[in-house]
Amino acid sequence: MRKRNLLLLSNSTQHGAGYLEWAAQHIKEFLSKRGVSNLLFIPYALSDHDHYTEVAEKAFKKLGISVCGIHTLPNPVSAIMDAEAVMIGGGNTFRLLSKLYANKLIEPLRKRVLQEGVPYIGSSAGTNVSTMSICTTNDMPIVYPPSFDALQLVPFNINPHYIDPSPDTKHMGESRQDRIRQYHEEDQTYPVLGLREGCLLLVEGSTATIAGDSGAKLFRKDCEPVECPAGDVSYLLTDA
Amino acid sequence: MRKRNLLLLSNSTQHGAGYLEWAAQHIKEFLSKRGVSNLLFIPYALSDHDHYTEVAEKAFKKLGISVCGIHTLPNPVSAIMDAEAVMIGGGNTFRLLSKLYANKLIEPLRKRVLQEGVPYIGSSAGTNVSTMSICTTNDMPIVYPPSFDALQLVPFNINPHYIDPSPDTKHMGESRQDRIRQYHEEDQTYPVLGLREGCLLLVEGSTATIAGDSGAKLFRKDCEPVECPAGDVSYLLTDA
Repeated sequence: MRKRNLLLLSNSTQHGAGYLEWAAQHIKEFLSKRGVSNLLFIPYALSDHDHYTEVAEKAFKKLGISVCGIHTLPNPVSAIMDAEAVMIGGGNTFRLLSKLYANKLIEPLRKRVLQEGVPYIGSSAGTNVSTMSICTTNDMPIVYPPSFDALQLVPFNINPHYIDPSPDTKHMGESRQDRIRQYHEEDQTYPVLGLREGCLLLVEGSTATIAGDSGAKLFRKDCEPVECPAGDVSYLLTDA
Repeated sequence: MRKRNLLLLSNSTQHGAGYLEWAAQHIKEFLSKRGVSNLLFIPYALSDHDHYTEVAEKAFKKLGISVCGIHTLPNPVSAIMDAEAVMIGGGNTFRLLSKLYANKLIEPLRKRVLQEGVPYIGSSAGTNVSTMSICTTNDMPIVYPPSFDALQLVPFNINPHYIDPSPDTKHMGESRQDRIRQYHEEDQTYPVLGLREGCLLLVEGSTATIAGDSGAKLFRKDCEPVECPAGDVSYLLTDA
């Protein structure tokens, strides 16, 4: 059985609240249950790594957790191998994945999380890169990564910040649902879990649980989308 | 001087109107001025090429223009070499660009448009691929193309369906402006013209004109964005 321990957040900031505030209780429980007191923070999804790490540091200080930015350490691979727990923050998914490849962190992260059970927290882009591929990110493709294949810590894709179609909009860009349907028209795709803002997925070994008020929506090729309220969704892991 | 003749639409469908209806008068003038009566339609951005071509056929019939889908011809490169005029329709930009590369159409299209002056109409994804790169598309990266470099018919990027930040939204995903700013944080970027829905760019040789009521917004690295109402924007072509 996979040893993984994942806390995958749709979003970092909820309207009207501070960084990670909405998920603070979940994060605290997730880390304290595993005796974590130091977190390796990967700020690659934003351009200013120092500032981003400071923001994370402040948020985690309130939870009694100390934070170290991976960019401040001389060797990023060693940093992963030594980490007690890892968090990858949100920002641009293409930039983030490109940097993970450039620093040769894909395999070390997979090994640590899947084989050694190192706790992994992802938010937004950090959630995207934990899945099979970044093919269902909402971000602009500002950098060309060597592949869209991601960390593959779970056997499906996630669409973070999932938002339902708005019947009132006059904007003619595709709805999120339309975009995910277009993804499933392609060959070799994965199920897509649309995590609404304020929703998170907790994965412990072969158990997966949705938490948060807003719930998720599951999209599978050639199927009608299905609502997933808070609760057990371990069936999503059966291909693992 | 470049011989190019480009009509680049932000969007195909305007709220409440039929396919291409909002731009019909512009399209009619653009093609009739150049004596075009047959259009080669490239439907690669959507999965159902036959249906998409039928939709285009109906819209152009009203303008007295006949349409042929490139997928119905035995050799797509020959189709480009023989075309009187070309239109690339909207849909998913990654799928479209991948198919242009797979069918080896990048260089033939560049040659025909830039050296031989074959009229080119692009809409949405078809506008994205006419620019330097697809790095400022809004689409989901459902397919991995061999490069983000596009047809480079103009020396800048376009963001179609450009939409201003909404002060009322509670959704925490980045605004379009935030996304373009993130693009400009990277190395080797281009200016980005955000074309609002109902806006188009006409390029004739070294003259560029914005038309439509909604106007555009120009984003340059390290500069404040600038409004571009309908009118001359030939300065955008000076790097060509």
